[in-house]
Formats: sequence, structure tokens, C-alpha cells
Amino acid sequence: MKMRVLEIAGNLRAKNEALASRLRERFAKSGTLVVNVLSSPGSGKTTLLVHTLSRFVSRYRTAALVGDQATDNDAQRLARSGAPVHQITTAAECRLDADMITKALAEWPQDELDVLFIENVGNLICPAEYDLGEDLRVVLFSVTEGEDKPLKYPLAFNTAHVILITKCDIADAVEFDRDEATESIRSVNPEAAVIELSARTGDGLAGWFALLEERVAEKQRLDRTEYLSTVTQ
Amino acid sequence: MKMRVLEIAGNLRAKNEALASRLRERFAKSGTLVVNVLSSPGSGKTTLLVHTLSRFVSRYRTAALVGDQATDNDAQRLARSGAPVHQITTAAECRLDADMITKALAEWPQDELDVLFIENVGNLICPAEYDLGEDLRVVLFSVTEGEDKPLKYPLAFNTAHVILITKCDIADAVEFDRDEATESIRSVNPEAAVIELSARTGDGLAGWFALLEERVAEKQRLDRTEYLSTVTQ
Repeated sequence: MKMRVLEIAGNLRAKNEALASRLRERFAKSGTLVVNVLSSPGSGKTTLLVHTLSRFVSRYRTAALVGDQATDNDAQRLARSGAPVHQITTAAECRLDADMITKALAEWPQDELDVLFIENVGNLICPAEYDLGEDLRVVLFSVTEGEDKPLKYPLAFNTAHVILITKCDIADAVEFDRDEATESIRSVNPEAAVIELSARTGDGLAGWFALLEERVAEKQRLDRTEYLSTVTQ
Repeated sequence: MKMRVLEIAGNLRAKNEALASRLRERFAKSGTLVVNVLSSPGSGKTTLLVHTLSRFVSRYRTAALVGDQATDNDAQRLARSGAPVHQITTAAECRLDADMITKALAEWPQDELDVLFIENVGNLICPAEYDLGEDLRVVLFSVTEGEDKPLKYPLAFNTAHVILITKCDIADAVEFDRDEATESIRSVNPEAAVIELSARTGDGLAGWFALLEERVAEKQRLDRTEYLSTVTQ
């Protein structure tokens, strides 16, 4: 029994890798920067993305996919930015996978995008195992969640390119220990860009926008065929 | 492929139900109240349990099992209460299941307990599907997480006997809307006891302790054989 489950899990993983590679190829051809946003429920993914889409929609061809187990509350909130937004309802599944992204793009074609944001299901465990063909994996954790979250969910934090510490406006109220949080992050991921921000006050958003805009420019500068040959992930 | 996965998932679920029933029988015989505590990461499970164990350890034979993907930080924090605490490291698994509880109790025998607290893995999705033989399923969500969490994670909230709204000391700072949260809760679960509390200030803890103590007394009052015949879950 255990063997069969492991074998099938292995097959599913291999299938996801193959589909993610195909997505990565496709996004390379179209010069689309893909940003996969992960966090536990309530860390502030949707609020951050509302601000980000509102800024990006007037500057770039921008769209968003949103995964949720139930309700389209988040999709509705994001759509207020004016960007095209498509909901993926995952029902019993605890994460998005490359197959869901492929199917969503088939029923909702958005070929000429500069940036595609993907808001993953609120969960720090399952989504970390599934490559969606993204260029940037962004993991949020809020100052209210405890400084040791990176140690307790090492895969999510270890595979992140960008780690955002959110809700910094209430850092003092919750006695957030910045040094301890930084140490936790660095012990599982010495490389990731770390940005502290507050979507409510706007502090730190400029740094986040600048990072994204640099990456969009970089992706577009690269000749797309050349880009393909440099994709190593 | 899909069929085999579903079939195996069904088998795993059936196996879990069988093991959970055996656990429930065992806990009925020993008169042990079992409390399964679920929430997303950072909602305050460990902090609440530190306070709860500290109170209970001098009044009842109390112990705790703690599930975590990695690190024994939470187990160490709980152990400071003086209660016996045992860590279950789930590695890739996103939740505890009845088999893990059975095995943990075999290697760490605690037969004569009045109360066993189980701190589940920080995740609002996967743990909701696994019965651990508990009497009380307690789901926490903090005022920082957004008032619509119950709608977005309906299974966890729908199967809860008790819903705790935590970190109420910062409710104003995060502009928590109590009416909207209550409406979200009631639309997925009209029955659950709802308690607002702050482990930091102590507000609301008395109500939580009283609820638990009443349930412990109730479980002990019942003749254990009789209790068995009343178990309907």
C-alpha cells in the first residue's frame, strides 16, 4: 500500500515537472514574467496583490490567476484593480499545480502578457512542492505569525526567490523580533531577497515594485530564444 | 491514473476512519478527553496551549502530542508547562492522521490521562480531513487573518466543535470586523461554540478553560461502557 502511494506520488511529481517545463517554455517565448505567491492563510497575499495589480495594470500587460479551495472572494478583490483575473477553485486540493495552470490558460487565453501573478492556495506546505513554471516564487509571512515560521516550513522558504515580511505596521504591537526572523530566514535560505513591508501604510512597497519591474525588464530584454537556452531550472 | 489515485485516497480515508474509531474506543475506556487543535501557521495554537497546559497540569493528568513538519520548537515550548509532551515529525505530510497518533501512543504510553491535547500541523486544509478520534475539534483563527477565513476553509470550520478567535488584543489595530467574522462562522457552522480571546492579555481564557473543564467532567461522569454506546461520530 505504502509503496503504491509513494509510486503514484512520484508519478504525479514527474508529471507536474513535465507540465511546468512546458509552461516555462511557453512563458519564455511570450516574455511573460510569472510570479507564484505563497503563504499561509491571512498573511496578506490578496491585499498585497491588489496594490501590485493596481500599479502594474497601467504599466504592463498584467493578469492574475487565483487559487482557492472555495469562494471567489479573492478573485473579486483582485479584479477591482482592473486587471483580468481568473479563479481556479481547487476544492479538496491543497495547492495549485502545473496542470491546473495549463487548463486555466486554455479556457482563459492571455498570451501577450508581460506579467502573470499567481496567488496560490493559502497553505505553506503543499504548494511548495509544485513548480508552476514560475520565474519568481514569492513567500509572504506576516509579523503576527512568529519568527520561526521559516524553520517550521523549510521547503516553502528554501525554494523562495523573494521573502516578504508583511504587516510591518503592527510589528511593535505584536513584539515582532526582526533579528530572530532574519536569522530564521537566513538559516534556510541565504540567497532570497527579503523585503519588509506594510500594504496598509505603503511602507516597503516601493522596494517590492522595483524588484518586480527590474525582473520584467530583464525578461523582456533577453532575446526569447536565447532566454530558452538559459533556462536551467 | 486519476482513478487509481482516487481509489487509494479512498482506501487511506477508510483506513483512517477505522483507526480513529479504535482510538475513540480506547479514549472512552480510559475516560480521556481528546482535543485536536487546528489552525493555519501563526494563529497562536502553541501560545494558547502553553497557557492551557500550565493550568491543566496541576488539576488533571494532562499531556500533549505536537505535530510539526520540521523542528521541535513547539514541543519544547509546550514542555515548559511541566506536562509530558511528545513530538510527531510529519516531514512531507501536511497533517496528522490516526495512524501517527496510534504509533506515538505506542512508543510513548500515556494510558491514564484525563486530557490529551493534540496540536496539529499548521494548515487549515489537510488536517480537517483526518479524524484523530478526538472529542473536541478546536479551530483557531486570529483577528489578523481576515474575516472570511471560515468561508475559504469551510471543511475545517464546519467540522469544528469550538472556534477560537485569537489575538483579540490587536483586533482594533488590524481593524477586525467582529460582525463580519461572526457571520462567516455562522454561515458554515451554526453550532460551534465561539470564544474570543487573547493569550497575551488573558482576556477570554477563563471561558475557554471553563468549556474544557466542563467537558472533562462530563467525560469522566459517564460510565465508560455507557459512553461507548453514546459515541455516534
